[in-house]
Amino acid sequence: MVPVSIDLNADLGESFGRWRLGDDEALLDVVTSANVACGFHAGDPATLLTTCRRAVERGVAIGAHVAYRDLAGFGRRFVDVDPEELYADVLYQVGALDGIARSVGGRVAYVKPHGALYHAVARHPGQAGALAMAVAAWHQPLALVGAPGSAAFGAAAPLGVRCVAEGFADRAYTTDGRLVERTEPGAVIEDVAQVASRALRLATARQVTAVDGRVIDVDVETICLHGDTPGAARLARSVRQLLDEAGIELRSFVGAR
Amino acid sequence: MVPVSIDLNADLGESFGRWRLGDDEALLDVVTSANVACGFHAGDPATLLTTCRRAVERGVAIGAHVAYRDLAGFGRRFVDVDPEELYADVLYQVGALDGIARSVGGRVAYVKPHGALYHAVARHPGQAGALAMAVAAWHQPLALVGAPGSAAFGAAAPLGVRCVAEGFADRAYTTDGRLVERTEPGAVIEDVAQVASRALRLATARQVTAVDGRVIDVDVETICLHGDTPGAARLARSVRQLLDEAGIELRSFVGAR
Amino acid sequence: MVPVSIDLNADLGESFGRWRLGDDEALLDVVTSANVACGFHAGDPATLLTTCRRAVERGVAIGAHVAYRDLAGFGRRFVDVDPEELYADVLYQVGALDGIARSVGGRVAYVKPHGALYHAVARHPGQAGALAMAVAAWHQPLALVGAPGSAAFGAAAPLGVRCVAEGFADRAYTTDGRLVERTEPGAVIEDVAQVASRALRLATARQVTAVDGRVIDVDVETICLHGDTPGAARLARSVRQLLDEAGIELRSFVGAR
Amino acid sequence: MVPVSIDLNADLGESFGRWRLGDDEALLDVVTSANVACGFHAGDPATLLTTCRRAVERGVAIGAHVAYRDLAGFGRRFVDVDPEELYADVLYQVGALDGIARSVGGRVAYVKPHGALYHAVARHPGQAGALAMAVAAWHQPLALVGAPGSAAFGAAAPLGVRCVAEGFADRAYTTDGRLVERTEPGAVIEDVAQVASRALRLATARQVTAVDGRVIDVDVETICLHGDTPGAARLARSVRQLLDEAGIELRSFVGAR
Repeated sequence: MVPVSIDLNADLGESFGRWRLGDDEALLDVVTSANVACGFHAGDPATLLTTCRRAVERGVAIGAHVAYRDLAGFGRRFVDVDPEELYADVLYQVGALDGIARSVGGRVAYVKPHGALYHAVARHPGQAGALAMAVAAWHQPLALVGAPGSAAFGAAAPLGVRCVAEGFADRAYTTDGRLVERTEPGAVIEDVAQVASRALRLATARQVTAVDGRVIDVDVETICLHGDTPGAARLARSVRQLLDEAGIELRSFVGAR
Repeated sequence: MVPVSIDLNADLGESFGRWRLGDDEALLDVVTSANVACGFHAGDPATLLTTCRRAVERGVAIGAHVAYRDLAGFGRRFVDVDPEELYADVLYQVGALDGIARSVGGRVAYVKPHGALYHAVARHPGQAGALAMAVAAWHQPLALVGAPGSAAFGAAAPLGVRCVAEGFADRAYTTDGRLVERTEPGAVIEDVAQVASRALRLATARQVTAVDGRVIDVDVETICLHGDTPGAARLARSVRQLLDEAGIELRSFVGAR
Repeated sequence: MVPVSIDLNADLGESFGRWRLGDDEALLDVVTSANVACGFHAGDPATLLTTCRRAVERGVAIGAHVAYRDLAGFGRRFVDVDPEELYADVLYQVGALDGIARSVGGRVAYVKPHGALYHAVARHPGQAGALAMAVAAWHQPLALVGAPGSAAFGAAAPLGVRCVAEGFADRAYTTDGRLVERTEPGAVIEDVAQVASRALRLATARQVTAVDGRVIDVDVETICLHGDTPGAARLARSVRQLLDEAGIELRSFVGAR
Repeated sequence: MVPVSIDLNADLGESFGRWRLGDDEALLDVVTSANVACGFHAGDPATLLTTCRRAVERGVAIGAHVAYRDLAGFGRRFVDVDPEELYADVLYQVGALDGIARSVGGRVAYVKPHGALYHAVARHPGQAGALAMAVAAWHQPLALVGAPGSAAFGAAAPLGVRCVAEGFADRAYTTDGRLVERTEPGAVIEDVAQVASRALRLATARQVTAVDGRVIDVDVETICLHGDTPGAARLARSVRQLLDEAGIELRSFVGAR
């Protein structure tokens, strides 16, 4: 019998100068992939250095959490960036983080778009193409993390980029496999036991129970854990613990490191 | 007889978004090393990409022109950055440019501090040490360009960093080998023929005539040409032409590429 | 017979630090209203101070050219800012410019949205409403300049804001009174004599010849002159000269100052 | 007998976008003067608006907490800004905050330099002069808060600016009336009762016990309470309570409002 494995990822390195955000230390003990901010929506260089050092110490894979250039909006506002500029913006951010990661013995292994860019590249052909081309242009293979069916995957896969779909254990799904909008009631699941059991089902069966009670397939390779809310670290630990107890192997989708 | 060679460097990629600065195209036809802005004092990613592409096309070496994070001041104002932060800021900038350079077949081969940082690391032990350590921590060998006798050289050389002293053909020198302050009369030499002949003497004899008429030794490996003033490109071409006609080999200090 | 008058406006103060843009001096001799950048898309404080001082010296009305917070994009990229944040962003920018203007004896008399914000508030209800409310919330009366029929006018007029429609002498119009897209051929009229004569017709008859040759009414109170292209200052002077010769009174829509 | 009064001030509005800092609500219930960030070291416009609204509701005086343009360093790093630029930077910041304050019925009543600028203007003639001139150039009277004996006071007083010296109840003093450096042991007093009693003595006698046990005069009109450390709000409330119980009148130095 093939052992079941899954990857856990979380957003890290989102402090900026005097402002602290998230419990990076705690989350790095839980996840196998760290989406590290690259300075455009968050993440001053000293924070990135500390985050990468700790990730390397724990064998956690490092991903470039690329974003729109928007500190004031934390990258959560759509910016109608020209694709050519976005292409260069992505390379700049990946390079900046990679330089820091290499100084502590790591390297950037994948790219995950952040915030509004994450949503934009799921459907905006120009921005999806720009992101895909930037990832493909990197001088070493990089995986691309995104929503299942993202337009960015459609653009990146033909370029030889490994596309990694992610799921959410703490978000409600519609029966067609999409996330319920955050503005809807019940969109975010806060019960720790429920989140953990949903994570387990995602890991073992690649399935989730949708809002209407039907079980649907969501073919994901990584589960995103949120880190910037109160109780986030505790929730993440609970998920990890249940997966560990169930004998699920937690390891990065990036492969042997 | 050993053929005489010298490197010519200039500051490039200093546009930002809508704002254009310098005649990069013209200077890239003249220099052998391009100090490319890294986004902290100037240089949006799309500009860096264009600049790196053109540099690679011409075989011009790419240097990271690292700076204080100060777009409003163009990196010309001293910022009392903590050495630990400066260390990370330098790695971030080098990485960002290197990522862009590699996407077009190049790489960052050296680091040159820009503006106020250039002057600070010549004498400020903390910042000099931070810069030196960042350059030494890079995952591949990087040269460091600076003023002869810079404190940064004192910190970097013991770490195995190749230190490259630079001279100025268009600046007056004191007899102890230092530049005359820009605020002094005669600090900047504008006569094209005079600048070119000073460049020739720097290249062939590593000597310059100081303000009191005495000839002094300035052991430099590269000559900095300014690019952001009217007539800069024409002046640079005149220097290059005279050196070419004198049979001086123009090549990067970085070595064969 | 009632003397005919019109206002001429131009975008000014768009330098930033080391980067210079536009010929502010020349345009200030031509226009009666200065749309001064407020630091979000361009305009460092020292530049704003100089621009306001010169505007006050010439009796040119000062308008706050408010924008998205986007130096890298020069405010030309739509940013999906939350209306509540946009409301505060506008007050911040108007206040910053007004503080500087008052230090030299002037004051902000109107607001004109810049770039992508200009286009967004013409049709985006949330952002149009935010802009309108911010203008209305100012502690002194402010006019609002925009495109004829802008959604921002619809939101601002009921709040008691004086709305000032602007026209373009160097842009082609469709027969329904809209500007031909810049990407279309013939969208921008470059012939100096033609631009000047169109400006004269706008001033005297509030009419313009559309692309199909039909004369249409465009009820505008101010004509926008572009300042950041080569030849812009010369074109502006030609327009002004023709209007002067025709006996058109050039004066700000703001009224007596 | 003349009733004794004192002002309490604290730094507020230091959040930025997604990043929250300080317990503004709690501190606004304690202080009589709010040093509100102006966007250069912290403080996005929406935060400033909320902070000003709450200050006006409580009758708390609003001060512009002007700073170097340095979000990444939180304004705590000296920046060698040219005085002419600093002058404009100060007017820009005061204006931005004043515009927001007026929209909710308030106004900026004083200026307090923040962080590294606070220390710089205590001894740097060029920057002290620039700050003083900017405060004096404001179109309405503004007070200036700073360290006793600040060079900025020396520059501002002859210009007719009211200069308000501040003291610290939680900082150790040398016998010559200066603060013990933060890097020294015992520089910061954390015992709540001790801080409160020192505040009381400052308020009633304008005296403080120095590190060598001698009682010295410190002629201050306002006491600064820190807000961004854990327990800061509790400490501030304790100080306020002791002063209230002692019958000290807490009111802004700005005068009746």
